[in-house]
Amino acid sequence: MEPLRPYKKELNYSYTPGAYAPIELLRSKPEAVRAVYIHSEFNDKAGMEELCGRHGIPVRYGDRHFARLNQKENSYVTAVFEKYTCRLKPDKPHVVLINPSDAGNLGTIIRTMAGLNLRDLAVITPAADVFNPKTIRASMGALFCVRFMEFGGFDEYRRAYGGHTVFPFMLDGVCSLGAADCPKPALFALVFGNEATGLPAAYASAGVSIRIPYSRSVDSFNLAVAAGIGMHAFAAGCGLV
Amino acid sequence: MEPLRPYKKELNYSYTPGAYAPIELLRSKPEAVRAVYIHSEFNDKAGMEELCGRHGIPVRYGDRHFARLNQKENSYVTAVFEKYTCRLKPDKPHVVLINPSDAGNLGTIIRTMAGLNLRDLAVITPAADVFNPKTIRASMGALFCVRFMEFGGFDEYRRAYGGHTVFPFMLDGVCSLGAADCPKPALFALVFGNEATGLPAAYASAGVSIRIPYSRSVDSFNLAVAAGIGMHAFAAGCGLV
Repeated sequence: MEPLRPYKKELNYSYTPGAYAPIELLRSKPEAVRAVYIHSEFNDKAGMEELCGRHGIPVRYGDRHFARLNQKENSYVTAVFEKYTCRLKPDKPHVVLINPSDAGNLGTIIRTMAGLNLRDLAVITPAADVFNPKTIRASMGALFCVRFMEFGGFDEYRRAYGGHTVFPFMLDGVCSLGAADCPKPALFALVFGNEATGLPAAYASAGVSIRIPYSRSVDSFNLAVAAGIGMHAFAAGCGLV
Repeated sequence: MEPLRPYKKELNYSYTPGAYAPIELLRSKPEAVRAVYIHSEFNDKAGMEELCGRHGIPVRYGDRHFARLNQKENSYVTAVFEKYTCRLKPDKPHVVLINPSDAGNLGTIIRTMAGLNLRDLAVITPAADVFNPKTIRASMGALFCVRFMEFGGFDEYRRAYGGHTVFPFMLDGVCSLGAADCPKPALFALVFGNEATGLPAAYASAGVSIRIPYSRSVDSFNLAVAAGIGMHAFAAGCGLV
């Protein structure tokens, strides 16, 4: 076992920061966990040891491990896990993020997805790193109950999963979110653009473009908020929650 | 003019970080601006000088000012302004945040409010600081087109503004957001709790409690996302956008 190091995209493992994520990981993907590190100030040592023991996961102690992680806030427990790959379910609704650049937004969107029973995420690269501990922290561990795949382009995603009705979210979308005539099929793919640029105009022809109505006081909504509003309308409208 | 210093709550002035906020401030509240600082790498010097000249606002140069601000990302222009107070409009819908603790969430919520034509915000203290540059940055400058007031408690807010139908957002709210029977009066106050604790149970009797339906995969939504979903439903439902 090598010592814990600050996260890098090139590593074949990552770790879970914060209080929630290690529990979520152990619940959803125990087979990926290499080891769990426990700080002397962690307040449920016995419970975590029991949980790890059940899955044959080694537990390591030593506060010095945590000092190396260079984390924004203190974590008193962290799970180191092998990166893994998923396949999206072709018969479930998808969320497609085109070049999301901020790990916090990406994690927050994943948390909202899990909360709305939207469990399949396509990420079009270049994009923030799903396995970055910042993403995992913002997801509050929900990353581990969502399937995700990276694609080099939207076309590549559509070749792999062509059965979904596509809804690109655009500032000048044709259909106003909340309008009674807004279509809500069972099998949909909601497409959101990058924080700074939104979706290029060409996406208007990829499906039924959706506009979240907004005042001209702002240029746009925060990406995680816009995705939250859009996903809630579709998830609630289609009875997913 | 004293030199620029890192922001502190005790100061009677603050400054606008990022590219959008100084423009928004000059558009909405030029009378509050003490001075505008321009970095040598700023790319619209002439435009900013013209805008400041129109309002008689002094312009200062010198990259050393920016070094002192200790900002996360580079700003090439910043406006220093006097803190000001507002009164909420009694005949407009309100958003009420109970003890929001994160400046980023607070600013993101303010951005969403402005985008949805919800322009009156009550903040129940203790709370993140509305004038913190982090809040202003997350609001993308929308702070300057929203009225806000701090209150020591929800009761104090209600004594000042008693005419609104109150909708506390709670995980176990009575009314499911999106349900057809969810009431949407013109004059509403949407109440959201703190990031970690949500609203105390007693708020259930303060009005018609609202539940954003969610799966048990998550404990809750991110506050800025939950507020975005709730505010969009009411603003769109009541024709504000």
